Amino acid sequence: MAVAVSPLAPAFFPEMPAVAGVRFATAAAGIRYADRTDVLLALFDPGTAVAGVFTRSKCPSAPVDWCRDRLKNGTTARALVVNSGNANAFTGKSGRAATKLTAEVTAKAAGYKPAEVFLASTGVIGEPLEAAKFAAVMERLVAGATPGGWHEAAKAIMTTDTFPKGAAALVRLGTSVVTICGIAKGAGMIAPDMATMLSFVFTDAPIAPSVLQRLLERGVDDTFNAVTIDGDTSTSDTLLAFATGGAATRGVSAITRLSDPRVAAFRKGFDAVLADLAEQVARDGEGARKLVEVIVEGAVSKRSARRIALSIANSPLVKTAIAGEDANWGRVVMAVGKAGEPANRDRLAIWFGGIRVAHKGERDPAYDEAAVSAAMKKPEITVKVSLGLGKGRDRVLTCDLTKEYVAINGDYRS
Amino acid sequence: MAVAVSPLAPAFFPEMPAVAGVRFATAAAGIRYADRTDVLLALFDPGTAVAGVFTRSKCPSAPVDWCRDRLKNGTTARALVVNSGNANAFTGKSGRAATKLTAEVTAKAAGYKPAEVFLASTGVIGEPLEAAKFAAVMERLVAGATPGGWHEAAKAIMTTDTFPKGAAALVRLGTSVVTICGIAKGAGMIAPDMATMLSFVFTDAPIAPSVLQRLLERGVDDTFNAVTIDGDTSTSDTLLAFATGGAATRGVSAITRLSDPRVAAFRKGFDAVLADLAEQVARDGEGARKLVEVIVEGAVSKRSARRIALSIANSPLVKTAIAGEDANWGRVVMAVGKAGEPANRDRLAIWFGGIRVAHKGERDPAYDEAAVSAAMKKPEITVKVSLGLGKGRDRVLTCDLTKEYVAINGDYRS
Repeated sequence: MAVAVSPLAPAFFPEMPAVAGVRFATAAAGIRYADRTDVLLALFDPGTAVAGVFTRSKCPSAPVDWCRDRLKNGTTARALVVNSGNANAFTGKSGRAATKLTAEVTAKAAGYKPAEVFLASTGVIGEPLEAAKFAAVMERLVAGATPGGWHEAAKAIMTTDTFPKGAAALVRLGTSVVTICGIAKGAGMIAPDMATMLSFVFTDAPIAPSVLQRLLERGVDDTFNAVTIDGDTSTSDTLLAFATGGAATRGVSAITRLSDPRVAAFRKGFDAVLADLAEQVARDGEGARKLVEVIVEGAVSKRSARRIALSIANSPLVKTAIAGEDANWGRVVMAVGKAGEPANRDRLAIWFGGIRVAHKGERDPAYDEAAVSAAMKKPEITVKVSLGLGKGRDRVLTCDLTKEYVAINGDYRS
Repeated sequence: MAVAVSPLAPAFFPEMPAVAGVRFATAAAGIRYADRTDVLLALFDPGTAVAGVFTRSKCPSAPVDWCRDRLKNGTTARALVVNSGNANAFTGKSGRAATKLTAEVTAKAAGYKPAEVFLASTGVIGEPLEAAKFAAVMERLVAGATPGGWHEAAKAIMTTDTFPKGAAALVRLGTSVVTICGIAKGAGMIAPDMATMLSFVFTDAPIAPSVLQRLLERGVDDTFNAVTIDGDTSTSDTLLAFATGGAATRGVSAITRLSDPRVAAFRKGFDAVLADLAEQVARDGEGARKLVEVIVEGAVSKRSARRIALSIANSPLVKTAIAGEDANWGRVVMAVGKAGEPANRDRLAIWFGGIRVAHKGERDPAYDEAAVSAAMKKPEITVKVSLGLGKGRDRVLTCDLTKEYVAINGDYRS
């Protein structure tokens, strides 16, 4: 089945520089797909700090368990192995054995310890992962690993994403410049696979693991955690950050505390990479024809604004209305009302594409139907809600809900 | 646009007896629809007890506010006016004025007080409701009200429901029999209307308002509150129960306490009527081709089981898989995992149509694909999850998510 590229895809994969201390290799191991790469190996220089955030699912995949265990016991990484085609989720003991074997095979080929190997898997769930397939390609992968190659790396981790996702930032720290590069896979899929979100960010900045972990936890809140395609949380969501410290050779001294004055600049670049990747995930939502930005302001708190924004962004009735290019603010009122957060019907105001369609609990009398119709035909639509209660504001990205979403996820299993 | 009747509809509207003390009349007031009835008037004998439960939306419709106010200040009703075509929601001051005017017009025509009139509206939201249209038909409605006529009553409150919904029970209380009859409208709709759920239950049993209110609150929990079509809560959900006491003339003495030994029998019939109506709402879910029963057992509590069942029943990925007749238990695992309730991946077992497809955190090795495929082709499908943690059990009804749902809700506004 040929899948067209999302109409919301960026025009080009970005130019991304190599990150000192990171080498990549990809292979076609035949995990599930034919005629394409499905394994990504990343090798890191000694002393590379690692941080991670994972799915909140109570039924996480075996690689998620593996990474959590590794991070409990250490904060440096020498290798990352990612495969597409099989998520190694709900695979019981054989799943745990597969993660162990993959790490051992990688460690042996590269001369590292299994505990220094991080893992992520995406694809079908409930099927045993044949880790022996990694053994067949691992020595070649280790031997062939080279700096750069972001486009190939991003392609190897795709499942039914319609385009590879990458983003980069250069950040001045004192007299030198550090590099932050990331790749992600999103929520494109064909039945019966589980939508999974994987992302990996790499930097040559010398950052202590504890600082990296805090930056990751803070950064994800307004980026990946503020994207929803269908409200369904994967068993495999994994976001790992690796800081090689390679920039130390260019005179960048180590960042060991959050209070380091250089953290602000680094964080700005880091968050921009996360935000760019997260937006690309929304642009590749299954069946998406519209990128939808939901802004909620005037809530009692940011947390309350987030909940209301997610209630709007996850509402099938709001999402189908946007697919139909219908500025159906009544459904937005419904979604505000069901969020369970403080709201006063008679203070609500709603905008589509910058045009106010409702205020003070009634249809805006000045509302120009033709102007709103024109706004709704655009591929990117902002829905803004003002609650008039406080200063809480938040923003969530989503996409519309189309017949193609149902077709992608509802067609018979092949 | 001709809408076919849901393939899950009951074969016939049930035979339903008149309830002593209740008279109905319907009219075509031209609220929104042409060539059909859109107003239902019910008149009650003096002393009729009333109880109600309403949407939890923070942005309720004007009639919901009206009914809540009435119930705060009184517990008897003489009239109920329901209109379809306009929900009188998000209509601000004009909406409040419309409820007041409707009650006044009804009270004047019937010789009652406005505070004795209960109201419900369903249909488009954000459009002013022209209450003057009620005035034009009210005297004729009052003059023509007669006992019985359930089918006509159920039809007058439909919006885009594909079939009228009614249910009845006869309950022996001592030496006499009381009647419980209900009607409902469900979640069928065409853009841009809001899905709304309205239901009205009538009995001639002499039940004190406080007892009726408790029975309604208890009864709704496992019936209407255990149904979800798309997780979107309406601004207008209203369930009212009216007890005329008409059976007193047949020797049934008043039920004034929950501890009355006759309450158990009454409650059984009352809950059966609610459950029947709620199931009919699920059978008329927008675009529904499959009625889906989700059973969760072995949870730490009933409340936890309910949350997990709703997580499964509201998951777009589970619902599209069922539309595709795919026993995709991986998506059920995902929905269990995202519910945020206690769950142990390695104790999970999952059944589709009574066939176990997964247990102890892995695919069931005895799983017969052909048998499951056959089960998935049926119009009614049970998904059962056993968590293996405790004795908490619950059940939720839903329907599948089809392209027709998106078409109904996403097509351009007419």
